[in-house]
Amino acid sequence: MKPLDQGSVIPLYHQLKQRLDARIRAEEWKPGDKIDSENSLMDIFHVSRNTAKKAIEELVQEGTLYRIQGKGTFVSRPKFEQSLTGFYSFSRVLREKGLHPTDQVLEVREVEPSAIVRAGLQLPLGENVVEMRRLRCADGEPIILESSFMPKSVIQDISVLYEVGTSSLYDLLDERYGVTVVRAKEAFEPVLIREGESVLLETEVGKPALLLERTAYDTNGEPVEFCISIVRGDRCRFYTDLV
Amino acid sequence: MKPLDQGSVIPLYHQLKQRLDARIRAEEWKPGDKIDSENSLMDIFHVSRNTAKKAIEELVQEGTLYRIQGKGTFVSRPKFEQSLTGFYSFSRVLREKGLHPTDQVLEVREVEPSAIVRAGLQLPLGENVVEMRRLRCADGEPIILESSFMPKSVIQDISVLYEVGTSSLYDLLDERYGVTVVRAKEAFEPVLIREGESVLLETEVGKPALLLERTAYDTNGEPVEFCISIVRGDRCRFYTDLV
Repeated sequence: MKPLDQGSVIPLYHQLKQRLDARIRAEEWKPGDKIDSENSLMDIFHVSRNTAKKAIEELVQEGTLYRIQGKGTFVSRPKFEQSLTGFYSFSRVLREKGLHPTDQVLEVREVEPSAIVRAGLQLPLGENVVEMRRLRCADGEPIILESSFMPKSVIQDISVLYEVGTSSLYDLLDERYGVTVVRAKEAFEPVLIREGESVLLETEVGKPALLLERTAYDTNGEPVEFCISIVRGDRCRFYTDLV
Repeated sequence: MKPLDQGSVIPLYHQLKQRLDARIRAEEWKPGDKIDSENSLMDIFHVSRNTAKKAIEELVQEGTLYRIQGKGTFVSRPKFEQSLTGFYSFSRVLREKGLHPTDQVLEVREVEPSAIVRAGLQLPLGENVVEMRRLRCADGEPIILESSFMPKSVIQDISVLYEVGTSSLYDLLDERYGVTVVRAKEAFEPVLIREGESVLLETEVGKPALLLERTAYDTNGEPVEFCISIVRGDRCRFYTDLV
C-alpha cells in the first residue's frame, strides 16, 4: 500500500478518501462489502483517528458508504440511473438492467381531483378521476410511490387496474381502451420523505426524495394520465443530455 | 362566499384547501400576501380550528404557503421553472423571465481534482484543475451554489475568471480561449442542504435541494467543464418533455 503524502498541500483525510474511493471504483470492495475499520485505516495509512473519521464521514455523506450501528461501514449499492432524454417506462428500465420489477397496487378508487390534478388533466370542475396508487419495486426493494390519476372517461372499469401489478399501465391502456400514450411532460423538484411514505418506501422521514409530476398525452394530444411520484433519492439518479 | 358542502364525502379540510388554492391561482392573493388567519377562516367557512389548521398545513407542506412565526401565513413566490429539454444558461433563463441575474465569484483556485471531477473531465492522475465557486442569484436572492472545474490546459490565466461575475462563463471561454461549449450531460439527485451551504444560500440545514452535475463538451467532444451545483429546492423546479 503506497503511503499517503504527508508533505502534500492536499489534506490527509482527502488523500485517504480518494484511496478508499479508488478501491471501490476498482471493485476491490463491492456493494455490501464491509470496509476496513477506523482502527485498521489508522494502522494502514498512519493517520490519526480524526483523519480516518473525516474521510469515512465524507464518503457516507456522498452516499458511497453507509453505516450500520454496531456493525461497521459498508459500500453502498449503485443508484438506479434513469435517462430523462427519451420517453421511458420504469419497468422497462429495470428489465434492461437485469432487475426484476414488481408493482404492488395499493389502492384503486374514484376521487375528486385536487386543483393540480384537475389542471394537469384539463378537466372541468365536478368531473371525478380514477386514482391508482402503486408501490414500485426493483428486485423486491421499494423505490417509487406513485399515484396515477386518469379521467373517468378513459377508465370505464376500474377493477381492471388491479391487473397492472403484473404488466405496464400504458400497455393496459393501449390494449383495453385503445388509448396510446405517445408523449409526456415531466416536472420534478427535491422534497423530503414524509411520514406515510417512509413506511411504504422502507426509508426514513426527512430523507431526500424527488417529487415527479408526469402528464401523459395520447395521439390526439389529450392528457390521459397525471402521475405524482415520490422517488427515493438514495436509490435513484437521473440524467439528461443537453444539446 | 359559497359555503363548503358539509354533506359531501370530500373532507372539509380538503374543500377548504381547494378554495384557498383557487384564490391564489386567481391571484386574489399574490406572492407575499398574507392570507386570512385561522380564526377568520373558521368564521368565513364555518369550520373547526382543526379543519382550518389542516388545510393551511397541507398548503405549507406543498410549498404554496409559508409561515412567519408570530406574523402569519403568506403566499409563496412561484418557483423558477427550468426546462431540461435543451441546453440552457442560468443567466439567460433568468433574463428571459425579466429577472436580474447576478453571480458572486466566491473563490478561484487551482486544486487536485476529486475522483469524480477527474473522471468527468477525463484527466490523467496528477493533473490539476481550476475551480471557480460561484453563488448565483436572481434579483439578489441566492439560488444556486456552483463549483465549476476546468482543466488547467483550458484556463491559462485564472484571474480572468473573476470577470465572470458580470458575464457568462461559456461566453468567456469562447471569447478568451476559443473554446465553444456545444453539448452537456447533466445528472441530478435530491439531497439535503448542508451546514456551509445553508449560510451562503440563506436557507436552513436539512432543506431539500437538487445536486446537479454537469459535464460540458466543446466542438471536439472534449470535456471542458465539470460543474457541481446545489440548487435550492424551495425556489426551483425542473421540467422536461419526453417523446
